[in-house]
Amino acid sequence: MITIFSEDHRLRDARTELFGGELVMPHERPSRAEIVLRHVQAAGLGEIRPPRDFGLDPVLRVHDADFVDFLGRAWDMWQATGYRGEAIPTCWPARRMVQRRPDHIDGLLGYYALATETSFTEGSWAAARASANVALSAAALVQGGEPAAFALCRPPGHHAAFDMYGGYCFLNNAAIATQYLRDNGAARVAILDVDFHHGNGTQDIFYSRDDVLFASIHGDPRFAFPHFLGYADETGADAGVGFTQNYPLPEGTAAGPWFEALEDALARIARFGAEVLVVSLGLDAFENDPISGFRLTSEDFSRLGARLARVGLPTVFVMEGGYDIEALGVNTVNVLGAFDAG
Amino acid sequence: MITIFSEDHRLRDARTELFGGELVMPHERPSRAEIVLRHVQAAGLGEIRPPRDFGLDPVLRVHDADFVDFLGRAWDMWQATGYRGEAIPTCWPARRMVQRRPDHIDGLLGYYALATETSFTEGSWAAARASANVALSAAALVQGGEPAAFALCRPPGHHAAFDMYGGYCFLNNAAIATQYLRDNGAARVAILDVDFHHGNGTQDIFYSRDDVLFASIHGDPRFAFPHFLGYADETGADAGVGFTQNYPLPEGTAAGPWFEALEDALARIARFGAEVLVVSLGLDAFENDPISGFRLTSEDFSRLGARLARVGLPTVFVMEGGYDIEALGVNTVNVLGAFDAG
Repeated sequence: MITIFSEDHRLRDARTELFGGELVMPHERPSRAEIVLRHVQAAGLGEIRPPRDFGLDPVLRVHDADFVDFLGRAWDMWQATGYRGEAIPTCWPARRMVQRRPDHIDGLLGYYALATETSFTEGSWAAARASANVALSAAALVQGGEPAAFALCRPPGHHAAFDMYGGYCFLNNAAIATQYLRDNGAARVAILDVDFHHGNGTQDIFYSRDDVLFASIHGDPRFAFPHFLGYADETGADAGVGFTQNYPLPEGTAAGPWFEALEDALARIARFGAEVLVVSLGLDAFENDPISGFRLTSEDFSRLGARLARVGLPTVFVMEGGYDIEALGVNTVNVLGAFDAG
Repeated sequence: MITIFSEDHRLRDARTELFGGELVMPHERPSRAEIVLRHVQAAGLGEIRPPRDFGLDPVLRVHDADFVDFLGRAWDMWQATGYRGEAIPTCWPARRMVQRRPDHIDGLLGYYALATETSFTEGSWAAARASANVALSAAALVQGGEPAAFALCRPPGHHAAFDMYGGYCFLNNAAIATQYLRDNGAARVAILDVDFHHGNGTQDIFYSRDDVLFASIHGDPRFAFPHFLGYADETGADAGVGFTQNYPLPEGTAAGPWFEALEDALARIARFGAEVLVVSLGLDAFENDPISGFRLTSEDFSRLGARLARVGLPTVFVMEGGYDIEALGVNTVNVLGAFDAG
């Protein structure tokens, strides 16, 4: 399959991640995309193309305009304060507080963020836009008749909600691609999120809709980030009731129960009548991932790719998480190669 | 007046505060209490006594039992993860997320915190309990007939809500003292919060009650921490409607408008028929405070103390913020000395 990749991902190169009470080198770093690219090349998966620029219109189909405007201004506002670090929120609209948007950058960060590990930096907005264009370019290929395409997105996207960033994500690449497919002919699109972490942002964006089915297999929020979304009883609202399906699994989950959840999700996707499948492809369900808690092996990722091929739908793979960088290229190509061979 | 002081405040000695995207030495540090103590001694304000131990019962009159239990266990849970820094939340129940309490310490921190600048450390819980005992001991003196007493509390308390900590606060000393006064004979207690930052925790605790009037003069949340509470249209709920009064003032506010707000607050307190006054005494409205934005002078604090004396109510002063440490002793004693002289 064709891979879409943008060099601009390197503009997202934060020095700090708040982790364990320290500011450490971010787990989500440029070498992640580079190693995946090298493995895609080495495996001869297919052509690698740069994205084209779709502008902000397709982004604004799923994100709040004020939020997008904020992302574009946040770094300048932060710099104007004289603060010396990267931009990290210090407070937020906590329980029972008002959800009114303040004026000061310290308040705006807390209003628009859902986590503190994602330091906002000078190049973050440019990289996030490029990443959205990568997803859109892959979606356009599939919309144009390609059986599948791989959006090698970085930064990732599935934690980014309608108007919130965090979890290393700024714009929701999978959601933007999904909406593009909807706006260009697909009546029903299914999103399968196999990242170890719940795709809270994607769920948030489509929660009240019946034209997009969202299914996510992830670490139970009682023990796993993002901790405050991803329970099994979140099944959609209004017209969307029944079109969100969460599979929160316990710490240490290995292939057996994980693939059982996958089968259930794929059965739902078949019943839904999806015309296109968007896969939020995180590889952090891997047994050696440093910040996750499942036990899939590299072979399990090949099994995943082969199984997805048998779904028989046009498929857009959108890169999400995965932090065992040494294994990330292998595991990604295991999914994609097995899909292509399937 | 008598000052209550506990050496145990030193057990709260965090190494880190998340500020401007960096981990810096905390603004809320042990030397704050030490300099105030020295100035109280040098000014001959009156006897200095240690607190007595009231146990957790009076704390549980205003705080959630599960929250108090969490504060007692948080450090051990954090240590068990192997994290190397002090405990800082990385995510929280953001807008539209569920408010279900997770099991993992990372989730619990976000559930029970309202800000990230307050690193939770080994001695924080012991110091917070001692600080509550300081406030209770001062309240007991006034309940017993003293015209006034000074609770030299550290850590401070007014940002601590029913079940949330943050803003350097863990237990709400002023609220605990207020409830003690209510439970021991005072029918109506007024809380006047003159800290630069809104007393969001105190407001939260008494928001639905008509037996405690809460009035706060503070930096407008649009520009000042805690950013998500303290607007003028927050006036109470249910039976408490009309018993919360906020005076959010713009950045750069000096004595003129500040004392106008004070006069309005004192008129409300008089109409309310308060039998006791609890003053949340932050000194960070001072012109040189490094993290605040008002322009009161040291002389203005003397004026405040003299004005409070003319209210003519039994008064419990509870130490809150103030981060220009050089001036903190002078400004505190200016209030208290002028009160005693009034």
